[in-house]
Amino acid sequence: MLTISFESSAKSASVALTRDGILLAQSFQNNGLTHSRTLLPMAEDLLKNCGVDKRELERVAVARGPGSFTGVRIGVSVAKGLCWALDIPACGVSTLEAMAWQGIFAPEGSLLCCAMDARRDQVYNAVFRVRQGRPVRLCPDRAISIAELDAEFEAAVKKIAEKEVILLGDGAERCYNTLRGAVLPPQHLRLQSAYGVALAAEGAPDVSCHNLLPLYLRVSQAERERATDNEQRITNNGQP
Amino acid sequence: MLTISFESSAKSASVALTRDGILLAQSFQNNGLTHSRTLLPMAEDLLKNCGVDKRELERVAVARGPGSFTGVRIGVSVAKGLCWALDIPACGVSTLEAMAWQGIFAPEGSLLCCAMDARRDQVYNAVFRVRQGRPVRLCPDRAISIAELDAEFEAAVKKIAEKEVILLGDGAERCYNTLRGAVLPPQHLRLQSAYGVALAAEGAPDVSCHNLLPLYLRVSQAERERATDNEQRITNNGQP
Repeated sequence: MLTISFESSAKSASVALTRDGILLAQSFQNNGLTHSRTLLPMAEDLLKNCGVDKRELERVAVARGPGSFTGVRIGVSVAKGLCWALDIPACGVSTLEAMAWQGIFAPEGSLLCCAMDARRDQVYNAVFRVRQGRPVRLCPDRAISIAELDAEFEAAVKKIAEKEVILLGDGAERCYNTLRGAVLPPQHLRLQSAYGVALAAEGAPDVSCHNLLPLYLRVSQAERERATDNEQRITNNGQP
Repeated sequence: MLTISFESSAKSASVALTRDGILLAQSFQNNGLTHSRTLLPMAEDLLKNCGVDKRELERVAVARGPGSFTGVRIGVSVAKGLCWALDIPACGVSTLEAMAWQGIFAPEGSLLCCAMDARRDQVYNAVFRVRQGRPVRLCPDRAISIAELDAEFEAAVKKIAEKEVILLGDGAERCYNTLRGAVLPPQHLRLQSAYGVALAAEGAPDVSCHNLLPLYLRVSQAERERATDNEQRITNNGQP
């Protein structure tokens, strides 16, 4: 099945073209340009250079979160628009699970600690174990403080003894300063990419574009501020 | 320094844009299209999507071989043309060394066995050891039969005991069937890429475009056939 995959959950953006999980082409950017400017031209040029017409696409995969609110929305929106126009199914995958697929170079039994910078001293995190070349999930996606993650790993690392803990994602560097003994792979191997999304989407269920939804683990800043405003309005008897 | 890097030594082709070794963007294709059709449009689109004018480029790096004669020639020729037109220096690196830079996710002390399919039961090969996140070369680039490589590794692996041997490159799969106990990373991590070229080119000396030359370890099929023809002509007293 010919699948186009999108990853735009943090600063970098990428697009991959795969057939049955085999990578045919990938474009990756990490230059600070906004995804609304980069993502669609990258996809268009990638298909053009592969000699593939967009009408040949059979499926769209996307990292649907957690991640940057703006980034996730752009990725999911592009995927929805493309699926709707081409009348093909969508597959939304966890950004953290997509990231874990990039860590399967790690030796059997290693722990993959996927982390994205969630600001406010937190990371979006999930932990996986490498089993026969696949990441096996050990906890749900969550927003967690780096201090809590450190405490959890200190307890876990004692149990797993000599097994390695590999840090992945754009939040890996932040964790590296705290998590003792963890391994920080080079940047090009730890940053999330669309091929990770494609691998996570293999075997995952399809949905219609209407049911493809972003996955936010926290409310957005705008929603927090509106909630605070509303609380104040109630306190002030409706006066702003 | 803003560097564009090209890798077209085998079936896949890729272009990377880096600043001082940090990856800004990369395009990768592995769809069987000829490099003469794909390489330059990939570079053009990559720069366009990054908002970089080609006149801003300061250096061109390229995998100059060993590899497919046609692929290496196309990469080196594109690099030469670009350097000459923009009046910027070139840096040609060993394809096998570029590949080794992609294997630095491997644990300290691991052996990186870089291999490209050289047909006629041979691989182009070089071996590196991971030392503090860098590949350290253990032998020169060479064309070697898989049987000889196997014998060499059998002796070496006994010495290095439990250290891992990681296979990299488009010839990795061929070696995997023979080299017992070696690790075959997933395809997207083992195939050569332009970012590996960029990493190998960091700290490597620049040359003028006129001194950038392909590196062939064997004579091409055309040259072999001409030599055979000439021999026959001599045997036949100059009669064809």
